[in-house]
Amino acid sequence: MGANGPDLAALQRRLTEFAAARHWQPFHTPKNLAAALSVEAAELLEIFQWLTSEQAGAVMADEDTAHRVRDEVADVLAYLLQFCEVLGIDLLAALAAKIDRNELRFPRPGGGVDPSSG
Amino acid sequence: MGANGPDLAALQRRLTEFAAARHWQPFHTPKNLAAALSVEAAELLEIFQWLTSEQAGAVMADEDTAHRVRDEVADVLAYLLQFCEVLGIDLLAALAAKIDRNELRFPRPGGGVDPSSG
Amino acid sequence: MGANGPDLAALQRRLTEFAAARHWQPFHTPKNLAAALSVEAAELLEIFQWLTSEQAGAVMADEDTAHRVRDEVADVLAYLLQFCEVLGIDLLAALAAKIDRNELRFPRPGGGVDPSSG
Amino acid sequence: MGANGPDLAALQRRLTEFAAARHWQPFHTPKNLAAALSVEAAELLEIFQWLTSEQAGAVMADEDTAHRVRDEVADVLAYLLQFCEVLGIDLLAALAAKIDRNELRFPRPGGGVDPSSG
Repeated sequence: MGANGPDLAALQRRLTEFAAARHWQPFHTPKNLAAALSVEAAELLEIFQWLTSEQAGAVMADEDTAHRVRDEVADVLAYLLQFCEVLGIDLLAALAAKIDRNELRFPRPGGGVDPSSG
Repeated sequence: MGANGPDLAALQRRLTEFAAARHWQPFHTPKNLAAALSVEAAELLEIFQWLTSEQAGAVMADEDTAHRVRDEVADVLAYLLQFCEVLGIDLLAALAAKIDRNELRFPRPGGGVDPSSG
Repeated sequence: MGANGPDLAALQRRLTEFAAARHWQPFHTPKNLAAALSVEAAELLEIFQWLTSEQAGAVMADEDTAHRVRDEVADVLAYLLQFCEVLGIDLLAALAAKIDRNELRFPRPGGGVDPSSG
Repeated sequence: MGANGPDLAALQRRLTEFAAARHWQPFHTPKNLAAALSVEAAELLEIFQWLTSEQAGAVMADEDTAHRVRDEVADVLAYLLQFCEVLGIDLLAALAAKIDRNELRFPRPGGGVDPSSG
């Protein structure tokens, strides 16, 4: 995710335009998108279900499997962005707020200020 | 996702530092993170499972439900980012490549160049 | 599930023998089987994700879709039985106990004794 | 699943009567039940997501965790049975047919007749 790559907001706009151009919006209800997101996450898990830890750690070394993994993470993010779009949710703000809450819920061991919360 | 909000790369770094500070990396194997991602996506779906389309479209009008929805989308993105981190996957590049492929796979009805692919 | 059909215990034994004959037991850990069960349940959901209620109610009228639905419910039950086998869980007793608890948790409207609990 | 325990058909009838007595049938569409099944399967997986193989193999030794596991397998079977009920699917026949197909698809190593297929 380098400084010169695509940004998340631009990708979200591409997805919205892509669906609109194909008249898919009637199918893209919050409930259907939540189901589709869950299905894609399970397809990602499917790649790993019978693998040992060692095999799972090496999935990106095989080009076909690496392609499949990248394809599934893309699908998960695509449905997550479209879900947030139809419900007007700011996904990055939601994650920032969740990390803030988790920093209170799971205090940093050893005390001190969490440098990641600055 | 306004221009002044948190950016995805910064949130991914916060998540990595958060897990490292709590010594959670041994648990954050690709397989475990894929399982956790799938579980969180199902928790998002759970909110919608018995709702009608009308009720599903109105979930953000109820503050408690809206909070729960934002919390679950944050969890999904958190595990997706951590999964990509441990496997060295550029999530945004993966999504951009997937949209490119989908533009070939599902041609724009009526022909013409897809303005979203410019 | 007529009186002359296969019974659940016999099917569970067939699954156990099938896996043993192929030396699949090392893969059939509780965690892997729980992941596989979740993946198969998502594959069943995938059939329905973009369907309207009307279309969803008619899936068994199309022979190809009907076959796919029967195939996925079989996979879900297969992994559920194998999961219970490796952990020594009596699946039917677990369900009977759960229904008993639900009858207390969700009292029958209008009062009276629930005839299904006799 | 001893000879004197509850049988699957009787449990399926109890579930149908339970839902009917509470007027839940309008919610029990095939699509909603497939979503609920998927959610319950993920809740079962959640118990295992951060466990090592050793910890996962010992879940039934802790009474609280054992209860949770039995509760989730019961929920999975409950929604699976209700799903099959509303679509008129014979679940046990579907599994028997699937095992038959798998015996052809994954031949028994070493040849010979599979004793489990007799």
